[in-house]
Amino acid sequence: MNKYEEKTISGETLYKGKIISLRVEEVELPDGNLVKRELIKHPGAVAIIPITADGKLVLVEQYRKALERSLIEIPAGKIDPGEAPEVTAVRELEEETGYGAKEFTYIQSFATSPGFANEIIHLYLAQDLFEIENPAAGDEDEFIDLMEVTVEEAEEMVKSGKIFDAKTAFAVLYAKNLLSK
Amino acid sequence: MNKYEEKTISGETLYKGKIISLRVEEVELPDGNLVKRELIKHPGAVAIIPITADGKLVLVEQYRKALERSLIEIPAGKIDPGEAPEVTAVRELEEETGYGAKEFTYIQSFATSPGFANEIIHLYLAQDLFEIENPAAGDEDEFIDLMEVTVEEAEEMVKSGKIFDAKTAFAVLYAKNLLSK
Repeated sequence: MNKYEEKTISGETLYKGKIISLRVEEVELPDGNLVKRELIKHPGAVAIIPITADGKLVLVEQYRKALERSLIEIPAGKIDPGEAPEVTAVRELEEETGYGAKEFTYIQSFATSPGFANEIIHLYLAQDLFEIENPAAGDEDEFIDLMEVTVEEAEEMVKSGKIFDAKTAFAVLYAKNLLSK
Repeated sequence: MNKYEEKTISGETLYKGKIISLRVEEVELPDGNLVKRELIKHPGAVAIIPITADGKLVLVEQYRKALERSLIEIPAGKIDPGEAPEVTAVRELEEETGYGAKEFTYIQSFATSPGFANEIIHLYLAQDLFEIENPAAGDEDEFIDLMEVTVEEAEEMVKSGKIFDAKTAFAVLYAKNLLSK
């Protein structure tokens, strides 16, 4: 996994924030040349594909300041320090949708923006959903709308650009394959 | 699209780099509270799903400093200033794989890390591939290995973690659906 490894010659953390930090490193390429890499460190996140008993996808809509628009996404959230991803998944599903799931299945993990960030998303499938009576509240700075759509509706939303998020586009294809089996 | 909009109260660009820049903004939430948002600006990118005449996916392997490992991905690259995404797609396919495509189809666009970055990837399907005799060279700092795999092999690589990239995981499902039609 280390082919063409870029050795760090020097580096500096230029920003250490609440969620992300920024490092600039000088690295040595396989041909000996030196280049600068701009790197964002992120704690990692989970995302959940919640499917109701009648085969609907549960989605959340929230404003995303980075894009200056609201996005429709599968439920997701950052991993708290020391938290196991499967705990984050259960917590975020409850906080963002009010649902619990009798069946949680780990699907896979992937990097979201490997060109500049180390963010990894761990993806879970949540089935056999049930409504939690007094669900834990989410982050204070999150304002979220909930919706439940069929996979066909979700596919249309991807085509029309209403779903404009990579992990959610993956989730729609994943749910389609799962439910057509 | 502006539901729960977060109005910028103040902001500061803390880093302006070669590829990304970092801004921290104080925003007003719908309930009137103020919070800080850490925002990465990125020029946007394209990614290409190249499928050979015999139904194989063309993948590239390169070292990703942000993750300190090499990743196997579909060909992709940043949009140059003023460049139309469909031009970037043709250019990156040639530079990274040496292939041209008689058929280029726009699939969709999506945000990769909406929680903190504005990076958008425009996704294209490339079919009817042909080898370019003297392909343009890629970026000087890119060291890339090429591989061609069946969709079944690619699915195995996703399951085993050998493919560990969100856009590529999407591409594998997309190619599977396309080729099973």
